[in-house]
Amino acid sequence: MTRIRLGMVGGGKDAFIGGVHRIAARIDGEFDLVAGALSSTAEKSRESGAALGLDPDRCYGSFQEMAEAEAARSDGIQAVSIVTPNHVHAAAARTFLAQGIHVICDKPLTATMQQAADLADAVKSSDALFILTHNYTGYPMIRQARDMVASGDLGRIRVVQVEYPQDWLTEAAEQTGTNKQAEWRTDPERSGAGGAVGDIGSHAHNLACFVSGQGVEKLAADLQSFVEGRRVDDNAHVMLRFDGGARGMLWCSQVAPGNENSLKLRVYGEKGGLEWAQEDPNYLWFTPFGEPKRLLTRAGAGAGDAANALSRIPGGHPEGYLEGFANIYTGAARAIRAAQQGQRDPVLDLLPGIEAGLAGMRFIDACIRSSAQDAAWVSL
Amino acid sequence: MTRIRLGMVGGGKDAFIGGVHRIAARIDGEFDLVAGALSSTAEKSRESGAALGLDPDRCYGSFQEMAEAEAARSDGIQAVSIVTPNHVHAAAARTFLAQGIHVICDKPLTATMQQAADLADAVKSSDALFILTHNYTGYPMIRQARDMVASGDLGRIRVVQVEYPQDWLTEAAEQTGTNKQAEWRTDPERSGAGGAVGDIGSHAHNLACFVSGQGVEKLAADLQSFVEGRRVDDNAHVMLRFDGGARGMLWCSQVAPGNENSLKLRVYGEKGGLEWAQEDPNYLWFTPFGEPKRLLTRAGAGAGDAANALSRIPGGHPEGYLEGFANIYTGAARAIRAAQQGQRDPVLDLLPGIEAGLAGMRFIDACIRSSAQDAAWVSL
Amino acid sequence: MTRIRLGMVGGGKDAFIGGVHRIAARIDGEFDLVAGALSSTAEKSRESGAALGLDPDRCYGSFQEMAEAEAARSDGIQAVSIVTPNHVHAAAARTFLAQGIHVICDKPLTATMQQAADLADAVKSSDALFILTHNYTGYPMIRQARDMVASGDLGRIRVVQVEYPQDWLTEAAEQTGTNKQAEWRTDPERSGAGGAVGDIGSHAHNLACFVSGQGVEKLAADLQSFVEGRRVDDNAHVMLRFDGGARGMLWCSQVAPGNENSLKLRVYGEKGGLEWAQEDPNYLWFTPFGEPKRLLTRAGAGAGDAANALSRIPGGHPEGYLEGFANIYTGAARAIRAAQQGQRDPVLDLLPGIEAGLAGMRFIDACIRSSAQDAAWVSL
Amino acid sequence: MTRIRLGMVGGGKDAFIGGVHRIAARIDGEFDLVAGALSSTAEKSRESGAALGLDPDRCYGSFQEMAEAEAARSDGIQAVSIVTPNHVHAAAARTFLAQGIHVICDKPLTATMQQAADLADAVKSSDALFILTHNYTGYPMIRQARDMVASGDLGRIRVVQVEYPQDWLTEAAEQTGTNKQAEWRTDPERSGAGGAVGDIGSHAHNLACFVSGQGVEKLAADLQSFVEGRRVDDNAHVMLRFDGGARGMLWCSQVAPGNENSLKLRVYGEKGGLEWAQEDPNYLWFTPFGEPKRLLTRAGAGAGDAANALSRIPGGHPEGYLEGFANIYTGAARAIRAAQQGQRDPVLDLLPGIEAGLAGMRFIDACIRSSAQDAAWVSL
Repeated sequence: MTRIRLGMVGGGKDAFIGGVHRIAARIDGEFDLVAGALSSTAEKSRESGAALGLDPDRCYGSFQEMAEAEAARSDGIQAVSIVTPNHVHAAAARTFLAQGIHVICDKPLTATMQQAADLADAVKSSDALFILTHNYTGYPMIRQARDMVASGDLGRIRVVQVEYPQDWLTEAAEQTGTNKQAEWRTDPERSGAGGAVGDIGSHAHNLACFVSGQGVEKLAADLQSFVEGRRVDDNAHVMLRFDGGARGMLWCSQVAPGNENSLKLRVYGEKGGLEWAQEDPNYLWFTPFGEPKRLLTRAGAGAGDAANALSRIPGGHPEGYLEGFANIYTGAARAIRAAQQGQRDPVLDLLPGIEAGLAGMRFIDACIRSSAQDAAWVSL
Repeated sequence: MTRIRLGMVGGGKDAFIGGVHRIAARIDGEFDLVAGALSSTAEKSRESGAALGLDPDRCYGSFQEMAEAEAARSDGIQAVSIVTPNHVHAAAARTFLAQGIHVICDKPLTATMQQAADLADAVKSSDALFILTHNYTGYPMIRQARDMVASGDLGRIRVVQVEYPQDWLTEAAEQTGTNKQAEWRTDPERSGAGGAVGDIGSHAHNLACFVSGQGVEKLAADLQSFVEGRRVDDNAHVMLRFDGGARGMLWCSQVAPGNENSLKLRVYGEKGGLEWAQEDPNYLWFTPFGEPKRLLTRAGAGAGDAANALSRIPGGHPEGYLEGFANIYTGAARAIRAAQQGQRDPVLDLLPGIEAGLAGMRFIDACIRSSAQDAAWVSL
Repeated sequence: MTRIRLGMVGGGKDAFIGGVHRIAARIDGEFDLVAGALSSTAEKSRESGAALGLDPDRCYGSFQEMAEAEAARSDGIQAVSIVTPNHVHAAAARTFLAQGIHVICDKPLTATMQQAADLADAVKSSDALFILTHNYTGYPMIRQARDMVASGDLGRIRVVQVEYPQDWLTEAAEQTGTNKQAEWRTDPERSGAGGAVGDIGSHAHNLACFVSGQGVEKLAADLQSFVEGRRVDDNAHVMLRFDGGARGMLWCSQVAPGNENSLKLRVYGEKGGLEWAQEDPNYLWFTPFGEPKRLLTRAGAGAGDAANALSRIPGGHPEGYLEGFANIYTGAARAIRAAQQGQRDPVLDLLPGIEAGLAGMRFIDACIRSSAQDAAWVSL
Repeated sequence: MTRIRLGMVGGGKDAFIGGVHRIAARIDGEFDLVAGALSSTAEKSRESGAALGLDPDRCYGSFQEMAEAEAARSDGIQAVSIVTPNHVHAAAARTFLAQGIHVICDKPLTATMQQAADLADAVKSSDALFILTHNYTGYPMIRQARDMVASGDLGRIRVVQVEYPQDWLTEAAEQTGTNKQAEWRTDPERSGAGGAVGDIGSHAHNLACFVSGQGVEKLAADLQSFVEGRRVDDNAHVMLRFDGGARGMLWCSQVAPGNENSLKLRVYGEKGGLEWAQEDPNYLWFTPFGEPKRLLTRAGAGAGDAANALSRIPGGHPEGYLEGFANIYTGAARAIRAAQQGQRDPVLDLLPGIEAGLAGMRFIDACIRSSAQDAAWVSL
């Protein structure tokens, strides 16, 4: 079994998520990073590439150049990871898809609805795969939760509570001139119109839908920019009505001191309830109504096939964020290998792709629209 | 120091909250229960009273009878606890207030807005005190939280998240014929128009306002009755706008399996955050922004005067729900003793009274109105 | 039903445990405190008694005086709580037992083995009851744990881990002249030869035996006095061999910063395991081997008769230390009422008495003996 | 920067720890696995190697063959991971050290004291490095803990409590014929005389010493084999006296239902306390005496240089067991690269090596000796 040859767009120095993608691609040994347009100039790209052991000849100054050059090589990349700010996703992804190169793209899908629509067209016309790294769906106990809901263990779902508070933007970090992450993520040109809603609300939305098996039909969103001078929302309260009859709430915030990355999902049905928290991801609480709460653990008693398929090590040996992220990459590898044989691997049913990306964009757009109408209810 | 002579309306057999009030009144030895209209007939009342060691002559068939008889005795009751279903609160309270007997009344204030207004008038015209047992405000760490917010430890408050899920009405317990609690609490005639919103949402609302020091100005409430045949809401999602600029969310539910009585409050300001959970009430999490999270404990390092004033025993020896409830009673005793001297004890600034009760009724009413307009925003 | 007339020896100002006993006696309304030898002189005793609403005539300067005077009254005390430092327990208890007055005594039993033996003789020769407030056995979930072990839910017990760390004596609090608690509890004349071992180790030992149903047969104890100038141990490591074949460890410490009152018990058998922590006493973790861990809660699903018999309020409404303590008092009240009818109430099988007290003394003594032999194994 | 060429001894099918080493070696991209003596025959080794993408020519039937062949290649392995049962460690390690190939070896060091001594000699005479994967020392918050102790944040250390319970051997898994892990780990020929003590007790001992900065001087160990027919201990209670004056306890068990891999360390000094649990490794509790408990988090506020040097991603994005293990590998890579330049990288001060291995063997041996004398105290 040879490794899949991977390129990367973005992810140079000062980047956060690029490094995550690289580790995720390495953990299961399915990919080899061999080329990159890591930074905005060829020189910086080579510099970043050198630190990663890349051949300088395969460190490019732009994704266009990379796509063309790599497509022309017999040992060219077979897949590409796009880890740039959001406004670059669509153009980059379309370029590689046009060359038949599989795309693994960071979320949210794009910065604008138009970009999203264009990208969706490109995905449809390409034979190459498009995977969106809504990485939290890669956690084993999230797969278990989804499976339990789908299997009816909770009965008909009534209530979905999801929240994603952070605190890193409690102060005006983007105005200090020293925090590139804060800068682009609060710049509507680069991140899109949604701030917290786009960056983390989209994850929360995705997770709620992934596990509940329901989509959001209507919502009312009260968005705030608490920090003076901030150009996008940094806190959002959203009420949700799902297409399967569930009701829910979503709260995301970047100004909630004491919360590092506290994504939390709770799902309640006629017969039972589930609770999961990203910061303690090996645990899933399950309460069949009228019985004691049970602590299901990754690879432990009570973990089923859906979770076990994604576990590497025994229970009690915690797997974390990087392994969850790697599960998306390893799923992508399986799908890519099947695609190389002209087949469709069923893992694609579990991997977030263009549909999940579009749903996320509709969610962000609806939040912005609702908020513009003083938090009135809007349809997605 | 002699004990305050106390009567009780309601609280006979099969009642839950009456027993709680009785223990709360006993814990600090400030009250002696000496009379009661515990049940709907004199006979049943005497039966219930006998089990409590009451003099049969002071077990009455109605609150009217009791008020009259006790007011006429030289050793008559000085205060009365009203622990009936909500629709009886107003009439009972007015009767005792008219006799100059201090009233300690269970929440919510009344079943209807009209009853609430009438009762407010009666409170204004009486010299007797009116205390409403929003008992969660009696927890030491809640007093600490309120004090920290008021002292500016969190800076300007931005976000208030409060939730109160339970699971005891996941199924149609009120339709089994064996659960009196479920019956009256889901009967709009007796509980008022609000179901979950009235029973527990009102607690959550009260706690959020008590700690944040802000009132709710506008809200949008999405109420559901998930259980077929249920006549009141059993789940409510509410978005909140506070008069001090904070935004928030309130979720209450009686159909969330795995939640016994999971009242939880989180408050976030410019400088820090607080988290508290009723089921683990001796803990208060405090995060000054940019510093590690700190676990403040009742009577432990980090507990201040506001909490210590309500603590009986050292840290690590957990006080619970009954002690928190007793703190309301013991505060009421202090206020009553002062009133008996013609004075006003400042503890009244901390005890929930008619104003908190009216605010709670406006909250419930606004939730019902909003829900009737498909969860539109309404003013309180 | 009239209340049992109760006296108290000790528990004046500056005392901690006296107040606890008084609240515990009040919670369920079974006792009325009517007399006291609260302090070492009649004057101080009257002062302390006045704050408690006691009749000055029944505030005595010594327990001898009180025993005599009360025994002579037709409305004299029926029971007495002894809450003095340990060295007074035996003499006081014997005096009241001799008068046929039931004794509720704080732990450990006495300060010396000789006192313990003498007291045991007195108990045997008296018709009055002797209850020892090993209060942690009064927690509902501890009763549940004991019942599960006895019912065989865990199979044969193999391992018992018990620990009781505190941190209040991390520094030389007894040498500051301002901490009376620290003074007598580190004074071998008043507390007995054991420091941590006597004060809290005896609780841990008692709890381990109560739940496991096994007694300690042999132990090896490594005792330390970490704080310079301290006259008794402030940390103890003990290995345990039980008479039913289980092995275990006991750690108690008063110098473990970050531990307020962290008594914790874990019991493991062939078929399952249990975990319980005093600071979160409403929870009991149960793992049947090979199945997910279950969270049993007081008055919740999974709580059985043994726990429910001691619960006052529904699950999720936390009961705490004072309610657990009150369960001992209320059990004592039941036993006393039966004794007044010449009967033996089976609640006595669950209440700690002279046998538990003697076992505790043998434990303390064995620890001291082992430690004197450089932590060699000794028999109890 | 090119990757270090790595070989592996052991780690074929059915192995657990081999896969862990491979992932750990991959996570930071410092190693390329290029050769292996993965199984006991050349054929099986090729089969296992094929699944890993190894060149069949570099899949060997024995470690001797591999050492010789690889040493002869210009592109031969530069380092080897030894992940066999314990009795093979010494011979394999000595063979590679003799060839100047760096060794990364699983713990415990060897199966016997004699093997350990021989290996120590070999390490001394070789220029190649020897790293022992006491992987728990690679967790960032453990490094933080060690650093805090060394910096005096806790003052003089008084008490060290360490425990490592598991439950996977609660029943006689080694007697079912289907659990190879259980078989060799309970076979004294392959695992050494220690069962639980060797497998996990050695980890606990290592961690306690690593963080406290003290070595164990004397111990008393009560070892049990609770499961009938088991040939080694499955539960051990150990009292510890450290050479720096601290006292402690170690409990390890493989028969404690409800414990997956619950390694936990607590360290208490004159000025403060620390608590850490392996199953939630991103958290470190720190209590400065007299102040509220603080929750230090990996990469969060309160994390210092020692932890941050090992963190890949921001706080709240949990890193787990594999990342902790990878930190040992990545440290080894740094040390190897320095050694290739004839230098000694200071990371070696933090990496467990032959000395830690010998200390671990002395610990195991002392436990066995003590137990043979009915748990008497013995010196290490």
